[in-house]
Amino acid sequence: MHEWLAARVKASPDALALMIGTSQWRYAELDLFVNGVCAHLQKAGVTQGQFVGVLMPNTLVYTCLVHALARLGGVLVPLNTRLTPAELGWQIKHTSCDLVLVTEDLAAKLSVTACKWLVVNEAWLETSMPYTLPQTSFAMHHLQAVVFTSGTSGQPKGAMLTFANHFYSALASAYKLGVQPHDLWLSCLPLYHVGGMAVLWRSCLYGTAVDLHPKFDLEAINHSLDTKPITLISLVPTMLTRLLDTRQSWPESLRLVLLGGGAAAPDLVTRAQAAGVPVATTYGLTEAASQVATMLPEEVWRKPGSVGKALLFTDIKIVDDHGRRLPPHQHGEIIVSGPTVMAGYFSRDRSLEIGGGNQSHATGDIGYLDDEGDLWLVQRRSDLIVSGGENVYPAEVEAVLKQHPAVADACVVGLPDPAWGQVVTAMIALKAGQGEAPTPNANVTPDDLTQFCRERLAGYKIPRHIYLVSQLPQTASGKIARRQVAEAMQQIPA
Amino acid sequence: MHEWLAARVKASPDALALMIGTSQWRYAELDLFVNGVCAHLQKAGVTQGQFVGVLMPNTLVYTCLVHALARLGGVLVPLNTRLTPAELGWQIKHTSCDLVLVTEDLAAKLSVTACKWLVVNEAWLETSMPYTLPQTSFAMHHLQAVVFTSGTSGQPKGAMLTFANHFYSALASAYKLGVQPHDLWLSCLPLYHVGGMAVLWRSCLYGTAVDLHPKFDLEAINHSLDTKPITLISLVPTMLTRLLDTRQSWPESLRLVLLGGGAAAPDLVTRAQAAGVPVATTYGLTEAASQVATMLPEEVWRKPGSVGKALLFTDIKIVDDHGRRLPPHQHGEIIVSGPTVMAGYFSRDRSLEIGGGNQSHATGDIGYLDDEGDLWLVQRRSDLIVSGGENVYPAEVEAVLKQHPAVADACVVGLPDPAWGQVVTAMIALKAGQGEAPTPNANVTPDDLTQFCRERLAGYKIPRHIYLVSQLPQTASGKIARRQVAEAMQQIPA
Repeated sequence: MHEWLAARVKASPDALALMIGTSQWRYAELDLFVNGVCAHLQKAGVTQGQFVGVLMPNTLVYTCLVHALARLGGVLVPLNTRLTPAELGWQIKHTSCDLVLVTEDLAAKLSVTACKWLVVNEAWLETSMPYTLPQTSFAMHHLQAVVFTSGTSGQPKGAMLTFANHFYSALASAYKLGVQPHDLWLSCLPLYHVGGMAVLWRSCLYGTAVDLHPKFDLEAINHSLDTKPITLISLVPTMLTRLLDTRQSWPESLRLVLLGGGAAAPDLVTRAQAAGVPVATTYGLTEAASQVATMLPEEVWRKPGSVGKALLFTDIKIVDDHGRRLPPHQHGEIIVSGPTVMAGYFSRDRSLEIGGGNQSHATGDIGYLDDEGDLWLVQRRSDLIVSGGENVYPAEVEAVLKQHPAVADACVVGLPDPAWGQVVTAMIALKAGQGEAPTPNANVTPDDLTQFCRERLAGYKIPRHIYLVSQLPQTASGKIARRQVAEAMQQIPA
Repeated sequence: MHEWLAARVKASPDALALMIGTSQWRYAELDLFVNGVCAHLQKAGVTQGQFVGVLMPNTLVYTCLVHALARLGGVLVPLNTRLTPAELGWQIKHTSCDLVLVTEDLAAKLSVTACKWLVVNEAWLETSMPYTLPQTSFAMHHLQAVVFTSGTSGQPKGAMLTFANHFYSALASAYKLGVQPHDLWLSCLPLYHVGGMAVLWRSCLYGTAVDLHPKFDLEAINHSLDTKPITLISLVPTMLTRLLDTRQSWPESLRLVLLGGGAAAPDLVTRAQAAGVPVATTYGLTEAASQVATMLPEEVWRKPGSVGKALLFTDIKIVDDHGRRLPPHQHGEIIVSGPTVMAGYFSRDRSLEIGGGNQSHATGDIGYLDDEGDLWLVQRRSDLIVSGGENVYPAEVEAVLKQHPAVADACVVGLPDPAWGQVVTAMIALKAGQGEAPTPNANVTPDDLTQFCRERLAGYKIPRHIYLVSQLPQTASGKIARRQVAEAMQQIPA
């Protein structure tokens, strides 16, 4: 089997591949650009099996880099542009990236990291330099990317995704949502997230087109919907809410809104349906190359709040604390297995030859299956906050807060928010003042702590509200009483 | 990975699977029937790796047998119901079928064959007998079926198709034609042909429905088109012609007519398009699990007569007599490679473990690729006659004719026919009468030879016209001058 863009360009060279703003490219054109990028990558020394970090917004060049790395056998390490230099440095060091590619405006973020990096721009698309297709051939079990998810232990984890993971994800998505030769998928999710990257691979395999947006810009998205024959769009709840707030009508071409990235609030789904928006709810995971379960609009109407059945070849089971399978309607941990489940979290051995599919992944998320086999999410893993579609792990934020010399202890929780789904908030116990009574340190304000976080954490992870206390509530066993903190924080006026 | 019906029933148990006449079944219902059939098969001793012949028309039971054999690990040997007892006997013996399943009305055809056979009826669908799922698991490289094509050497050849062949065929077809959750595919091609079987596998993988017809019954097909939301239909040219002759209008739901089984005459394509029928032309092979190249209706309009580009992951090249790749527009043999190409022709070793895909198959068909990479068929392999969608190999018919004691030599050719595409015709040299001048044996008539064929050949293989001569025209090298025979036959009034 060929690398997929090569296969696609043979099957439908003239099919539309990509639109960005008013520009558009067919597969044959994309293929030429990818050859240009391959030449530049080879000049930079990239060979089969190397890890290449990419710190860029969604652009034509980024799209071409994804395909070029697949063509050369390099492994993509997509880096979140919202991270701080320190956060980026950790991920780059952790994966021992051989090279990091960055746009000029983001290069300053790499200044504190000891890595080889290169500025990439549009000049990479065209070149007269030759490049040599590597001897080693493409294989489904090769690693395509290491995609970081925030870690529960305070450190991010790199999900190792193979081409087979994407292949089966695209196939199962096509057989669930349908695919039409003239599909045009609006994607405003970043390519460094699995949801954004999955749209690229799907479209390449299907031979359909992507309308790629650098970010969620309300005006630009609405303009695309008004002027292009968009048939599908991937959104997180915050985005859908904002679109519903601004649009009077929706285009007839739009056959599906894939709503992921957080619990699909029944109210939002019902509101969208009342506006005539065909919402399909989905439950996705970086660790399973995006969609795990999806419910089509006609079913969502009947069961708002469910995320539907597992996609073809994916298996979902609900287990108790001892790993025993639970009957319908009983709450437990969601275990996902099938050919889309990652090869594992990255570890230092960097092994590229990964065993066959059907891995199993314990998500930590709590849910249940109903009598019909439809999945309902009860809560994402208890330690996960989903804010505007970005995952925030409290442990990571708490670890930073505790680095502040005045902080004795910290508890970070997500509070419900109509616009963002959840917002990050923190309750903090300051160290007792020297020689004083155990009262909060008068010298440190919430603003100081916010500033402290800003240097160390991506913006979306910084607590929107910080409340200082003398001591955090504890459980009988001496652990922080997270639920009690969350309840208390909800009582405090913003 | 699970066997596909098992995977499908988990993903969409309530989706419509099959319609026959006014009856219909959902995937969950089909699954129960298949368990019933599995129990009966196990009772009959069928185990993993056994070869099971099936001599039946298209029915619910046949559909369930296809899935049940996949579930148990048995290999399907679909037998053409139009064959004579002698032809069937050869195929059954050749594959050493462990068991042959037959409907009561066709059982007499097995009377001359020494094989274990069982009559199958609707009682097989439901049972209280338990069955044990075999220990050995389903694998993509396992053989699904041995499908016979007429052989060039006078004997049929069994194309060994793996599940992977069907899997990639279904995937590439979906990505070419599109797939919609509510697709309903009208199939009147027999399940013993790859075109009919491919519709079953595709639909099961997609989770869509088949409207299955036992045969091409014009009234029944028209009734389906008039009363059911048919979205796709597979036809051979003869069938399309008859539908065009009888229909004034075509349903709005119909999004594609997949026209295969013979050269797509530009006139027929143009006529269909004038009638508003969305014709997609296709070039398919038993040896490649059905579609190899397909052209969508919008392109057919521009290029009537082409069969389009190779499907995703399939490669077509045109070579000269020395196997050298030819440039665009030069005629040569069509070579097909990719993951849909069969594991090989059946031979006695019956090996079930077949190597990975990307086999290559020399079709013997002559064609060329144009500048855009679209395939044009110049002629099916010179020795192949396609009549009403059935393949007839002259060598097989000639071999039978030569068994007649009065026949000295025979040359079978296909003549163009508006209704059937081609019709089988024969020019025959009779042996000289004893002690007489070399004139045709006065005792033998064309009708005698037709009757002789009828006992040995399926009806569609029997020459429609037989012309007796004293000697067949020969080339300089002493071979029969086939082209000259064909030209001479065309001059003879029918």
